[in-house]
Amino acid sequence: MKKQFYNYIENLQETITSKLEEVDGLAKFKEDIWKRKEGGGGRTRVIENGAIFEKGGVNISAVHGELPEVLRNQFQVKEGHFFACGLSLVLHPKNPFLPTVHANWRYFEMYNEAGAIVKQWFGGGQDLTPYYLFEEDAIHFHTVCKAACDPYHSEFYRKFKKNCDDYFWNSHRNEARGIGGIFFDYLKETDEFSIEDRFNFVTEVGNHFLESYLPIIAKRRELKFTSAHKNWQEIRRGRYVEFNLVHDRGTLFGLKTNGRIESILMSLPPHVQWVYNHQTIKNSKEEALLKVLSKPIDWI
Amino acid sequence: MKKQFYNYIENLQETITSKLEEVDGLAKFKEDIWKRKEGGGGRTRVIENGAIFEKGGVNISAVHGELPEVLRNQFQVKEGHFFACGLSLVLHPKNPFLPTVHANWRYFEMYNEAGAIVKQWFGGGQDLTPYYLFEEDAIHFHTVCKAACDPYHSEFYRKFKKNCDDYFWNSHRNEARGIGGIFFDYLKETDEFSIEDRFNFVTEVGNHFLESYLPIIAKRRELKFTSAHKNWQEIRRGRYVEFNLVHDRGTLFGLKTNGRIESILMSLPPHVQWVYNHQTIKNSKEEALLKVLSKPIDWI
Repeated sequence: MKKQFYNYIENLQETITSKLEEVDGLAKFKEDIWKRKEGGGGRTRVIENGAIFEKGGVNISAVHGELPEVLRNQFQVKEGHFFACGLSLVLHPKNPFLPTVHANWRYFEMYNEAGAIVKQWFGGGQDLTPYYLFEEDAIHFHTVCKAACDPYHSEFYRKFKKNCDDYFWNSHRNEARGIGGIFFDYLKETDEFSIEDRFNFVTEVGNHFLESYLPIIAKRRELKFTSAHKNWQEIRRGRYVEFNLVHDRGTLFGLKTNGRIESILMSLPPHVQWVYNHQTIKNSKEEALLKVLSKPIDWI
Repeated sequence: MKKQFYNYIENLQETITSKLEEVDGLAKFKEDIWKRKEGGGGRTRVIENGAIFEKGGVNISAVHGELPEVLRNQFQVKEGHFFACGLSLVLHPKNPFLPTVHANWRYFEMYNEAGAIVKQWFGGGQDLTPYYLFEEDAIHFHTVCKAACDPYHSEFYRKFKKNCDDYFWNSHRNEARGIGGIFFDYLKETDEFSIEDRFNFVTEVGNHFLESYLPIIAKRRELKFTSAHKNWQEIRRGRYVEFNLVHDRGTLFGLKTNGRIESILMSLPPHVQWVYNHQTIKNSKEEALLKVLSKPIDWI
């Protein structure tokens, strides 16, 4: 399974970065291959200063070795070996009318002393962070997420959409990071689902990514924006940074387990502002966004 | 003691903000009085878009009530009441040749069921974060810190300087946040020191703050800078954000105990950049800074 899934994310990285370069038309992804001292490594691809994408990364990694302390504590085991691989992407468009998107699909294995698999699961999801809300874009994104889920279980979308709303909640601001999407973790083998079923589901979600995001880019890319729109985007990007550095388990896990810092923090936006006690104007588009982020919405 | 120290920080806030307004010459501090639902409140003063200070805050607060969960766990008590007050300041100058400075002086009390004090201590310190290093400025800052410490104990500066180097270490980057200063915590009553002695020491440090920082501003404020210097400053400010959101106990404590978010996060710089895998030029001033931040230096 680990070969099968790694092979999948290798190809998906290629598919996604080729397509994004085509859409951008100006910038190309820069590739960095890196090795992890304790075992494994990754292939980071970053795009910067494009016509559409101000900054973005589409990274894959496959790491293995002794369980780091933080995982030993979590699983309450004294020792153990693990394998983890996944694809992570974040895209920060230049135009404030285009939303930031994040996605991640990953697979994890843990072994006993004899080297047999004792734990094995998939995780992942994708979520959208607009700076200005176009309802139809939010509906489109969620509709594609649902279309990826529905063939596998009628309850998956509802459940994983709620997970996503719960997870991407910036609790210290009492607001959502964005308009959500789907998020799932610990998808293990059960009576109902084989590990192959799980693989099929997660790859189905991955295969829907471009369809969930690119039509939004196509529809909004020519919208004109002013420096006021840009300021608002940069202030909202501050909330993105706050979420990733204060709450995001993946980021903190990477920072505390000797991950490659530049690959982990490629998720941070290129230009960001913190303005003291920023207030939106009544009945403005900025205020409308904050209302939408104040509680989860059923988009479909 | 709590009245005595609160009275001190109230006056010190006034002294510092008046002097900083005079130095800036353009912007004025904006004041916000806030209340904490669970007890207490604060007086936040923020300056933005000044001639010298792009953003800064000099805040006091005095909060009390039931011990928040995070403190109950830390002290291993089931319940209890507390009082905490302090002054916190962060100044982010516009000119990249001027360093960012942070300082904090605080006092804490915890009570038993009868309302008697069972724990009581002072904490605080001040540290400097340059974007370009002028050795004589680092020496000046540390010399004033040492001058504040020496009358109280010959070992204080050495000890608190080391605490500062240890505390403001951005471990995931394997570099210091800045060139340090002094940092101390849990200064309790002992056989050697009464709580009055502790008060005298902490206020002595507070009284030296302006002398530690303003001569550096005076000396460097007219230096011309380019957009390249500004970019470097904004990239380095990213490290400041990373430290405050990932590692700083004070910030995380505030975020997790229902503090006033805008007062806590006034410490974040106004304009910040994250550039993927940024590299400095060999033998440049930027590279020289990174060398200095790679391990603690004895400035005196």
